[in-house]
Amino acid sequence: MSYTPTPADKFTFGLWTVGNMGRDPFGEPVRQSRSAAEIVHALAEVGAYGVNFHDNDLVPIDATAAERDQIVKEFKQALADTGLVVPMATTNLFTDPAFKDGAFTANDPAVRAYALHKTMRAIDLGVECGAKVYVFWGGREGVETDAAKDPLEAIKRFREALNFLCAYAKDQGYDLKFALEPKPNEPRGDIYLATVGHALALIATLDDPSMVGVNPEVAHEQMAGLNFLHGVAQAWDAGKLFHIDLNDQAFGRYDQDFRFGAVNLKSAFFLVKFLEEVGYAGSRHFDAHAYRTEGYEGVQDFARGCMRTYLILKEKARQWAADGEIQALLAEINGGDQSAPVYSRAAAAELKGRAFDRRALGARNLGYERLDQLTVDLLLGVR
Amino acid sequence: MSYTPTPADKFTFGLWTVGNMGRDPFGEPVRQSRSAAEIVHALAEVGAYGVNFHDNDLVPIDATAAERDQIVKEFKQALADTGLVVPMATTNLFTDPAFKDGAFTANDPAVRAYALHKTMRAIDLGVECGAKVYVFWGGREGVETDAAKDPLEAIKRFREALNFLCAYAKDQGYDLKFALEPKPNEPRGDIYLATVGHALALIATLDDPSMVGVNPEVAHEQMAGLNFLHGVAQAWDAGKLFHIDLNDQAFGRYDQDFRFGAVNLKSAFFLVKFLEEVGYAGSRHFDAHAYRTEGYEGVQDFARGCMRTYLILKEKARQWAADGEIQALLAEINGGDQSAPVYSRAAAAELKGRAFDRRALGARNLGYERLDQLTVDLLLGVR
Amino acid sequence: MSYTPTPADKFTFGLWTVGNMGRDPFGEPVRQSRSAAEIVHALAEVGAYGVNFHDNDLVPIDATAAERDQIVKEFKQALADTGLVVPMATTNLFTDPAFKDGAFTANDPAVRAYALHKTMRAIDLGVECGAKVYVFWGGREGVETDAAKDPLEAIKRFREALNFLCAYAKDQGYDLKFALEPKPNEPRGDIYLATVGHALALIATLDDPSMVGVNPEVAHEQMAGLNFLHGVAQAWDAGKLFHIDLNDQAFGRYDQDFRFGAVNLKSAFFLVKFLEEVGYAGSRHFDAHAYRTEGYEGVQDFARGCMRTYLILKEKARQWAADGEIQALLAEINGGDQSAPVYSRAAAAELKGRAFDRRALGARNLGYERLDQLTVDLLLGVR
Amino acid sequence: MSYTPTPADKFTFGLWTVGNMGRDPFGEPVRQSRSAAEIVHALAEVGAYGVNFHDNDLVPIDATAAERDQIVKEFKQALADTGLVVPMATTNLFTDPAFKDGAFTANDPAVRAYALHKTMRAIDLGVECGAKVYVFWGGREGVETDAAKDPLEAIKRFREALNFLCAYAKDQGYDLKFALEPKPNEPRGDIYLATVGHALALIATLDDPSMVGVNPEVAHEQMAGLNFLHGVAQAWDAGKLFHIDLNDQAFGRYDQDFRFGAVNLKSAFFLVKFLEEVGYAGSRHFDAHAYRTEGYEGVQDFARGCMRTYLILKEKARQWAADGEIQALLAEINGGDQSAPVYSRAAAAELKGRAFDRRALGARNLGYERLDQLTVDLLLGVR
Repeated sequence: MSYTPTPADKFTFGLWTVGNMGRDPFGEPVRQSRSAAEIVHALAEVGAYGVNFHDNDLVPIDATAAERDQIVKEFKQALADTGLVVPMATTNLFTDPAFKDGAFTANDPAVRAYALHKTMRAIDLGVECGAKVYVFWGGREGVETDAAKDPLEAIKRFREALNFLCAYAKDQGYDLKFALEPKPNEPRGDIYLATVGHALALIATLDDPSMVGVNPEVAHEQMAGLNFLHGVAQAWDAGKLFHIDLNDQAFGRYDQDFRFGAVNLKSAFFLVKFLEEVGYAGSRHFDAHAYRTEGYEGVQDFARGCMRTYLILKEKARQWAADGEIQALLAEINGGDQSAPVYSRAAAAELKGRAFDRRALGARNLGYERLDQLTVDLLLGVR
Repeated sequence: MSYTPTPADKFTFGLWTVGNMGRDPFGEPVRQSRSAAEIVHALAEVGAYGVNFHDNDLVPIDATAAERDQIVKEFKQALADTGLVVPMATTNLFTDPAFKDGAFTANDPAVRAYALHKTMRAIDLGVECGAKVYVFWGGREGVETDAAKDPLEAIKRFREALNFLCAYAKDQGYDLKFALEPKPNEPRGDIYLATVGHALALIATLDDPSMVGVNPEVAHEQMAGLNFLHGVAQAWDAGKLFHIDLNDQAFGRYDQDFRFGAVNLKSAFFLVKFLEEVGYAGSRHFDAHAYRTEGYEGVQDFARGCMRTYLILKEKARQWAADGEIQALLAEINGGDQSAPVYSRAAAAELKGRAFDRRALGARNLGYERLDQLTVDLLLGVR
Repeated sequence: MSYTPTPADKFTFGLWTVGNMGRDPFGEPVRQSRSAAEIVHALAEVGAYGVNFHDNDLVPIDATAAERDQIVKEFKQALADTGLVVPMATTNLFTDPAFKDGAFTANDPAVRAYALHKTMRAIDLGVECGAKVYVFWGGREGVETDAAKDPLEAIKRFREALNFLCAYAKDQGYDLKFALEPKPNEPRGDIYLATVGHALALIATLDDPSMVGVNPEVAHEQMAGLNFLHGVAQAWDAGKLFHIDLNDQAFGRYDQDFRFGAVNLKSAFFLVKFLEEVGYAGSRHFDAHAYRTEGYEGVQDFARGCMRTYLILKEKARQWAADGEIQALLAEINGGDQSAPVYSRAAAAELKGRAFDRRALGARNLGYERLDQLTVDLLLGVR
Repeated sequence: MSYTPTPADKFTFGLWTVGNMGRDPFGEPVRQSRSAAEIVHALAEVGAYGVNFHDNDLVPIDATAAERDQIVKEFKQALADTGLVVPMATTNLFTDPAFKDGAFTANDPAVRAYALHKTMRAIDLGVECGAKVYVFWGGREGVETDAAKDPLEAIKRFREALNFLCAYAKDQGYDLKFALEPKPNEPRGDIYLATVGHALALIATLDDPSMVGVNPEVAHEQMAGLNFLHGVAQAWDAGKLFHIDLNDQAFGRYDQDFRFGAVNLKSAFFLVKFLEEVGYAGSRHFDAHAYRTEGYEGVQDFARGCMRTYLILKEKARQWAADGEIQALLAEINGGDQSAPVYSRAAAAELKGRAFDRRALGARNLGYERLDQLTVDLLLGVR
């Protein structure tokens, strides 16, 4: 196996990820700034399929209209030269001090208006570059103290903004879907819509739920110590997995954004297995960045590593599905009549009156230790 | 202020909470078993409004029909003697080894059938005792390894069970609502529907979403390090706050189920303030238990403490709303035109073209430190 | 490679681990009780080297002297029949309600006296069975509220108990070392000596620090989200790694005690690599238990899996040390004059006056992404 | 009570705390830079006793000798004008890219040499300004992957650096103590010496342990979900509490550095009670910063709030000690003969043979729920 990425793998990176300069709360940048065109070429070199961006990753917040147009032109040229596409775009609603209390949920209505203004323009930019998915990460939509913002108001404001922007995108005739990206905290003390579940739940209350899905990120769910696969599966079940952000991180930590698979290979395996088996057709977007110990040589190593690990795990998933011992065990585990219960008065009466041998039900050896160890063996390459 | 509970406060406890014998994974029970009737009298003594139960808190799993009827009769007599009511009931789908791989999501279809059987009978019991809310805590609906259960299957099975049971309750003509109680882990490695958000999201996919809401528990969300208030607010916003479980616990720990307010008085304050201000009319259910260092004297101290702290914080919420300095600050924080944006092509065009002074927006001193310190002063009783 | 355990691997299990009946805070036992002799034979069957125990794993707390002697005789016979040894023993100071407020740190001096009484007798039992290491896990040495116990008193009491018991063991002429096993919480709200670091620090304050070391457990450090390897390395550096408990668990969770490697293969790899490379000669003790979904067939799978994963990772460590590309990268990373600075007035003056090119120091690409990805490849068996 | 700070309270702040410009990983600064002299005057205005600094908080890393001297002169003038003192100083070994792989533990020996060079000069600067405590926070002394650095080497290098610098300070005749400040992670994936315990344990292995103590920080221990009071008590017990950093933060989160008491008033209370009751005579240093929503007006609110909450809790501690009901309960809890066990062969024999009524020991109601609720009442100002 070569584990070499091809466009069919749909591997994408953000300008902000491979362009990350390695600044952190305690340290200055360790890498020079690179232009969007340089990043596109670097991504092409490692075999990526596409590149995504926040408006201000591409166009500085203070750029004139002429500067904007020139930048976009050069960026499109780089795309054309390399064959890369832009599947997704998003808005930077967090860097500027104007958003220090949030954007769509800021207490100051002028900030909320500015956030809508900025997002409409950023949507235009994204669509102009080809984006079909538009991500909303509400990184500053939160509080340090619940004294300062009414959480009901915050939810209401978030919904109103999304409704407005859905209407805008449709009115413009854009072929675009929205994807909400949840996160529990950082940079705010607590962020609203903390998890994939909370984001899915909000969607059901929107004017047009069909237009909006989610963009789950491994690291964000793992910050809350949640099983990422379970959230992704629920999003898929609801038809809402519009995009996905792949990276890695330890539970209960600051936002680490490590290389995909860098922390937990087993959970990464189950995720890849899921995405491949259900037929997820969207981008595999790596929202991560290289360790701060690295120069741009290391950034290339990092980008290659994200994709390589994905492809290795994809092959492992194929092996798992083809492994006779594993499949026999699964067949046993999933034995019996697995059809769904259908309610009828008669069915309920029968079931209510049925005798069960609960001791027998509890006495079975379910074989999950053996199955898990077979999986470990397979992951470690010793079967 | 006397901080003495009255029935109007709607304080309830589970049989399993004040009847908790103090067994834990490393230790034997420290308190004797008490009958349901004894517990009811003990609760009446401390001023509770109601008592809730799992089927097997009241009726042992092996009881004959005659034993069941006798137990229920004695329990109802205790209710009549004390004036306590039963606002909520639920099913024990976790103690018996039959449920070691879950109940509604178990891989074994016979276990799933038994879970439906047991739940229908438990619903009957709850309704017979007066319950208007029926809680579903899927404590064992999870996995230790994702090799062992397909998360999509699990979600599907959970939904099918809820649909079946909704149909059952309606077909029986029961005046009953269902409330899902999420939890991220323990006793399973990971539990499906990990948070309030995930539970709300599932509801939207049910046959009859109107019948099902949530029962958020402080400790369960805090195990995942989430801001409990935010989840409760989202449930309220969605019209889904059907019940609530009050207790306390440190973030990122085992399920501690401490006395309400025992860990974090500030977050407890914002919660009480919210419930009182929005007019939540349901039970204030304390799903907690006394420290294992206590005998039944300490259990009474514990139960009194839960209610007392709630009432103190309720009075603090009233003070907060009446505090001139706090309210002036809030008025300033929430100044400006707070009306919602309404989409029209013209409104969007105007907003897109509007000039914003983002430096001015970012330069404001928002006063949240001052507001939070005033809240701290108020909580500590020094203003 | 066969990955078949041999006595030279020094794999040990506790009676309480493979004898674990699968009871948890929410569920009844799923497996029958087994006698110590049965467990010894089951361990021999899977290839273990030794078996460890708490006093009451072997001898019930209420046993008469005659019963005790009979049990010990049968246990020794099982050891003789199988060739298994008892490298370690410990005291159960947590199951009985007498210890509900701790043992050595209980506020009640009678409880503290009883804890010393019980531990002396348990030490005798352990030594009689051949133990050379005696473990102290202070599982109940903690609080739910700091109102209830003075932490300075607690530390003092802990130290006094250890000093007393060291004196006892020496006075008896026992060839025995003590090993403290830290844990941050559960079953108490907070436990004193929360981590390997805290335990090491206490040792330095004992009457005879040379007799006491630590018994770090993977799961216990990971409950606090700590890097287990770092704690183990510090213990080794201090000459205090007297024993080790191997298992696995997610960060920030209840005490999961999963099969070694079941959660994070990468951190398990670095641990095995460390133990093997430094020449740790003690037991590799698996303090874990099978999933509750398993019968005793699954318990055997579990025990085999713990050892198998260790042996696979040991082989991976050998490969890592022999991998030319990895070693070349390491040589580059660790280049330059690595000798230690030695203080002299002249050396300090020279160093203080030396000119550094800090921009050059910061500009190096350190290659850690590449090194980590090579490690991932090696772990996944694709190099 | 006025809760107005006086110099006797020994409240100090770092230049980097009240001078914090509110930059975070996702956002630009929200506040203008202030000179050291301006900060000193701002601190004097709110009633602080002293001000601490990293070398580069005061003197830019690129300053010439002349610039340095001018800056120090102006700073000393501000101190003289305001009466503020400098009790503590420390080194910035984390901002410059040169330290991206750590300082004393960096793999590159030239970086380690530069770190010693910089620290000696920073010690000189600190001593020149009056510092009596010198803090070592090894914020970058860690790894993202254990492939990249040998943890034994890291511990050895850390120790060698401390030994060198102790020798330097003594050789210079400085009246100075060192205090190690632990942190578990951020900005590195994992940081060595993760907790107060690990730092205390390292000290015991130094050439001159007497010169080195610890500087525990609330937020750093709470990032690991540890009970801060317990770590502080262990440091005090060991005679090693040389300094303390007060702030607040939620468990299992990024480094939040919130205002003292902003998250958990109860744990803050037990900490203040401890410091006051044991007679801790060092600085109460607030290593925190204002919410990013604030301008410098809010920074003053923040600084005032830190001190005010401390003083309120100090008064609460006095009330607790004077409360008859609480003290009676404590007397009961701590009843019996509390003298320490003293080993002798006879004492051991007597104790080993003594009969205990363990059922009676386990049957006591310990009254901790009542005690904790009384504490809650006192904290909330309703007793």
